[in-house]
Amino acid sequence: MSSSPPLVVTPQSMQFAGPLALRSGASISDYTLAYETYGTLNAERSNAVLVCHALNASHHVAGVYQGQARSEGWWDNMVGPGKPLDTDRFFVIGVNNLGSCFGSTGPMHVNPATGRVYGADFPVVTVEDWVDAQAALLDALGIETLAAVMGGSLGGMQALSWTLQYPERVRHAVVVASAPNLTAENIAFNEVARRAIVTDPDFHGGHFYEHGVVPKRGLRIARMIGHITYLSDDVMNAKFGRILRSAVEGENNGEAAGADYRYSTQDVEFQIESYLRYQGDKFSEYFDANTYLLITRALDYFDPARNHGGKLSAALAQARAKFLLVSFKTDWRFSPARSREIVKALLDNSRNVSYAEIDAPHGHDAFLLDDVRYMGVVRSYFERVAKEFQQ
Amino acid sequence: MSSSPPLVVTPQSMQFAGPLALRSGASISDYTLAYETYGTLNAERSNAVLVCHALNASHHVAGVYQGQARSEGWWDNMVGPGKPLDTDRFFVIGVNNLGSCFGSTGPMHVNPATGRVYGADFPVVTVEDWVDAQAALLDALGIETLAAVMGGSLGGMQALSWTLQYPERVRHAVVVASAPNLTAENIAFNEVARRAIVTDPDFHGGHFYEHGVVPKRGLRIARMIGHITYLSDDVMNAKFGRILRSAVEGENNGEAAGADYRYSTQDVEFQIESYLRYQGDKFSEYFDANTYLLITRALDYFDPARNHGGKLSAALAQARAKFLLVSFKTDWRFSPARSREIVKALLDNSRNVSYAEIDAPHGHDAFLLDDVRYMGVVRSYFERVAKEFQQ
Repeated sequence: MSSSPPLVVTPQSMQFAGPLALRSGASISDYTLAYETYGTLNAERSNAVLVCHALNASHHVAGVYQGQARSEGWWDNMVGPGKPLDTDRFFVIGVNNLGSCFGSTGPMHVNPATGRVYGADFPVVTVEDWVDAQAALLDALGIETLAAVMGGSLGGMQALSWTLQYPERVRHAVVVASAPNLTAENIAFNEVARRAIVTDPDFHGGHFYEHGVVPKRGLRIARMIGHITYLSDDVMNAKFGRILRSAVEGENNGEAAGADYRYSTQDVEFQIESYLRYQGDKFSEYFDANTYLLITRALDYFDPARNHGGKLSAALAQARAKFLLVSFKTDWRFSPARSREIVKALLDNSRNVSYAEIDAPHGHDAFLLDDVRYMGVVRSYFERVAKEFQQ
Repeated sequence: MSSSPPLVVTPQSMQFAGPLALRSGASISDYTLAYETYGTLNAERSNAVLVCHALNASHHVAGVYQGQARSEGWWDNMVGPGKPLDTDRFFVIGVNNLGSCFGSTGPMHVNPATGRVYGADFPVVTVEDWVDAQAALLDALGIETLAAVMGGSLGGMQALSWTLQYPERVRHAVVVASAPNLTAENIAFNEVARRAIVTDPDFHGGHFYEHGVVPKRGLRIARMIGHITYLSDDVMNAKFGRILRSAVEGENNGEAAGADYRYSTQDVEFQIESYLRYQGDKFSEYFDANTYLLITRALDYFDPARNHGGKLSAALAQARAKFLLVSFKTDWRFSPARSREIVKALLDNSRNVSYAEIDAPHGHDAFLLDDVRYMGVVRSYFERVAKEFQQ
């Protein structure tokens, strides 16, 4: 859609003295938020869009880092010059959330109050806390009102929470592949992943940094479980099916496709096993174990209806923004039914809401992938948002 | 349905000199099969029904053990006097499969060829191998032809395989909540469970017996993952939802329901977590880690269409039995679509097949639970089977 040159970006960081009061009752002081911006803030400061990240992403939403190959931002297909969220028109901000492991203050950093690495003592953070921290960053950047806040999955929860915590500061919310809370099954998958990490002997109660080890076994298992829930059954069958690793190796060696079972319980036999092991290994090299616990817990805890007797319509009555909701038919992690709950609750409050249910095959991962219908819907929506401040 | 006294049973075992040739090319000699029988074999030896077990069950299908509380067989609601598979009419046989850990020869036993515990050296066994071993047991019991072979899940795969390996020895096959092979997603879940076990430092390459330890961490994770896939999303929400552990504890103590988050990443917060941890702990106390690897691999490998160019219809052309297939609408592990593949392939061969798709809420677990429609279908089918030998 665009012939613009690649967007080259530089990560930035902002120091905060705090204290930031957290929902747990604890607070955090002397913290840093890593962030990036794309495009230019207009004179009226009316074209800012905040993009919130999900479990394992960061503030590096779009563009590339100077001189670094393969450094594209995690939503580079969505955000950039001429992209659906067009940085030629919007000033886009990505923030790494507190407790994450990509530059903002997290469990691997030193707690200034004790001089020790936080580790498992890093305070539990919630979606609401992240939104408060993001709001403090916007204050520091001189941005009072967002043209839009946008996110997918856990990022969508933050976008939704923005409209409830700071209703006057958000004109539009774009909530993709998200949910108003986790189901028991969602929590169950998170819990298995956490148990795998916590029971890894290298976890050391969350203070593994002091022992010079990383609970990689647990992180691998956590990531493998996650990956299964990100993909649809159909796309897994299409991509891997029952293909044997030996058949693929044979092809790569120019041999006739070997297709016999090796009859082993511990070796890789099927391609899907090879894929999952690879994903698990890669993840365990860079992701922080305490961050995994913190972020999955933030997912578990998110439940705006909770303080409204479980009534989502009552909870969303506070929202003033206009909404775009997007879901994907094959997403079984956050199914379309969950997005429809949000749509219904907004309509109960006569809010302005657009909803697109995309028939993409990729499961939950679809929110990160290219689909012309999905990209088209988001592009059209942001064209409408842009018209509001261009008039 | 029955007012018969409880069925009291005694486990038996049969020694085999072997060797039993396995699909892997290996063979096993000097092995034992644990089994139980219920009811009486008629003079014509025409009323025998073999019941095949799934991942974590055994030969103890029905009845109770003398003087042992809570010793009901795993399918006691299905099999017994006056039950859908009525032991007043049928002679029912349950067999513990080779490689399992409930009495038949398995990885925890001594390999007579080496004098060492098998451990990870126990040969890889397949569904087909189990069926061969079951056939050898029937030979020893003097049973040439089965009135029926029946099983759920992995047990259903064995029932299906019986009709292909010994078409002349099976008059009816009852295949419940099963599939003609595993999908990539099914294999993926098995693989994560296996990785959790194999990477547990207490696994010692499968020779943990010699170290006096058990890879309990891995077994716990494996069981937690399994449990999630056995239950439907709906039944998990109905049973656990987002209920907090503190609320339940408060109720148990006669307090007003406490309903506040504890804000912890490692403690139990939600009831579903408590349930999964309990199931994992219990399982890790009694189940053998190598058996878990072997049985999940047998699931992975089962694929009768594989030697027929992937064509299930071609594979099932060998079957001579009549079939009852049962599936459950909320089963996402082995969905109704998988049973329908089998039904279609049988119909392609003009086989006699009945099919019931039960709208039960319990997911895959439904095959073990009481549902009047499910039980009614099986009861009716066995009444028809009984008529054949009563004439």
